[in-house]
Amino acid sequence: MERDVILREVGLRDGLQLVKEMFPTDAKKRWISEEVAAGMSEIEVCSFVPPHVVPQFQDHEEVVRHAKSLSDLTVSALVPNAKGAERGFMLGVDKLNFVVSASETHNQKNVKCSTEDSLVRFEQIMEVRASNPDYAKTEVCSGVSTALGCTLEGEIDPKRALWLMGELVKRGATEIGIADTVGYANPGQVKALFIDAIAEFGADRVVAHFHDTRGLGLANSLAAYEAGCRKFDASLAGLGGCPFAPMATGNVVMDDLVFMFEAMGVRTGIDLDRLLSIREVLRENLPADEPLHGMISKAGPPKGFRPASQPLAAE
Amino acid sequence: MERDVILREVGLRDGLQLVKEMFPTDAKKRWISEEVAAGMSEIEVCSFVPPHVVPQFQDHEEVVRHAKSLSDLTVSALVPNAKGAERGFMLGVDKLNFVVSASETHNQKNVKCSTEDSLVRFEQIMEVRASNPDYAKTEVCSGVSTALGCTLEGEIDPKRALWLMGELVKRGATEIGIADTVGYANPGQVKALFIDAIAEFGADRVVAHFHDTRGLGLANSLAAYEAGCRKFDASLAGLGGCPFAPMATGNVVMDDLVFMFEAMGVRTGIDLDRLLSIREVLRENLPADEPLHGMISKAGPPKGFRPASQPLAAE
Repeated sequence: MERDVILREVGLRDGLQLVKEMFPTDAKKRWISEEVAAGMSEIEVCSFVPPHVVPQFQDHEEVVRHAKSLSDLTVSALVPNAKGAERGFMLGVDKLNFVVSASETHNQKNVKCSTEDSLVRFEQIMEVRASNPDYAKTEVCSGVSTALGCTLEGEIDPKRALWLMGELVKRGATEIGIADTVGYANPGQVKALFIDAIAEFGADRVVAHFHDTRGLGLANSLAAYEAGCRKFDASLAGLGGCPFAPMATGNVVMDDLVFMFEAMGVRTGIDLDRLLSIREVLRENLPADEPLHGMISKAGPPKGFRPASQPLAAE
Repeated sequence: MERDVILREVGLRDGLQLVKEMFPTDAKKRWISEEVAAGMSEIEVCSFVPPHVVPQFQDHEEVVRHAKSLSDLTVSALVPNAKGAERGFMLGVDKLNFVVSASETHNQKNVKCSTEDSLVRFEQIMEVRASNPDYAKTEVCSGVSTALGCTLEGEIDPKRALWLMGELVKRGATEIGIADTVGYANPGQVKALFIDAIAEFGADRVVAHFHDTRGLGLANSLAAYEAGCRKFDASLAGLGGCPFAPMATGNVVMDDLVFMFEAMGVRTGIDLDRLLSIREVLRENLPADEPLHGMISKAGPPKGFRPASQPLAAE
């Protein structure tokens, strides 16, 4: 399947981390399987945090094993530290995502250490990786959260975000997500930062991770695309948020993002109709008061809509 | 007040035309006054259709007189034909907006005549205007609806939209709205059409009129801006739709559009806080089941947000 952009499902991690009720393991597996069948090529399936911190991810081993059994899927997971990373390496996860905040205050709140200490934690993860040749098949990546603004500090100097990205790349991060954790970014700011980041680190390394808190999720994705970005995080039905960023609810809605790109002639490799049908898995298994976001699911595609990606052949 | 873009409130016309219950005349006047105080420079205040067709606009005379009494406001109104236009000319409305559909089928459904006949109706309006020197102070403009797609015909050839714009300009239209009546447009398509339209007719003549039906309203506005468009229709709280275009609910949310532009450093001349407070007029006077859309109204502006426009001095 030819793709012009890589869309990455983060709902199973960024979305579910805020959902108090346990999302059934079988439903997680079904969500993953059905998205892969719809053409999704990368899914962040869980976070390797201790079960007492986020009970939602206590089934991570079963979920990872299931995801790893599917072909054509890059399986990624979030890790807070070397201990979590070791679990990921042992399970053969394809990519581990570490998170550092560009905002010192947010980093303290989120992971209870300084940004510099977070960089040391990243180094520890790389040391664990180097300790066992089997671990080399796992890439280590990082997200720079609050890279475009912070509910605690306000504006973030883009130079600081770029500096942090550089420090992570220097330490071996193969990809860096520029995260608008709290939905503060605007398209002008996004375009400028992504042009600089891509010039410095290359388009292969840079990922857009936007939230739709203030309605600009798609406009910001468009701005990042125009700046040369080709990798985008989003979540089915816009599930998601950040426990330490008040009001920061909702990743970019994957279904609407697929529609935007496919309508523009940009191939996502994802079958929109099949993707939309997977919202049912969320509807059936999320608490009743959990909102499902998105517009294309309500309005349906335009009459005569011709997506850029060919529909997948039946399996 | 310096402005980089002109935003035009269309909620009183495009929004209210679908609301069955009469929106109180005093509330319409308050909506208009408060938006002018917030910095809105142009408002489409009503439609000159017969009261038995759309009872919502039966108070058009009082509403127009009120709007005309305010300084710094361009007062516009929709007209379906020469008879409606004459009322507008007599009341001294600054701009009259006529509508023709790029989709022949949609034009038949919407105004029960062919596109060619609609052009004849436009000529009749211009004849009425020429019949009285007092009428010369009123500009006649037109919108090309379904210019970017139609629920009945599907895709619309951009050449047809451009041809129709040309015919209207030839007949004296000073501004042409490119309307995505049913929310079918995507940013790539928007950018291409607006680049062509602005090259042919000039940025002063071209207006973006988008609906958010499929979530791309802001992304499309951004694409039009990047193509050189500087005039944008939107409605407070995204009120709006089209009675003959199923599911076509919701103009672009004015409040979110103001936020996007102001955050990008593009001056709208509109005070976002004051604008947001006017949602209360809608909440108090619309039927309880009428949804108020928008994200910035829920999440609030970012910490330390510095809008591009200086807040207005207190009157």
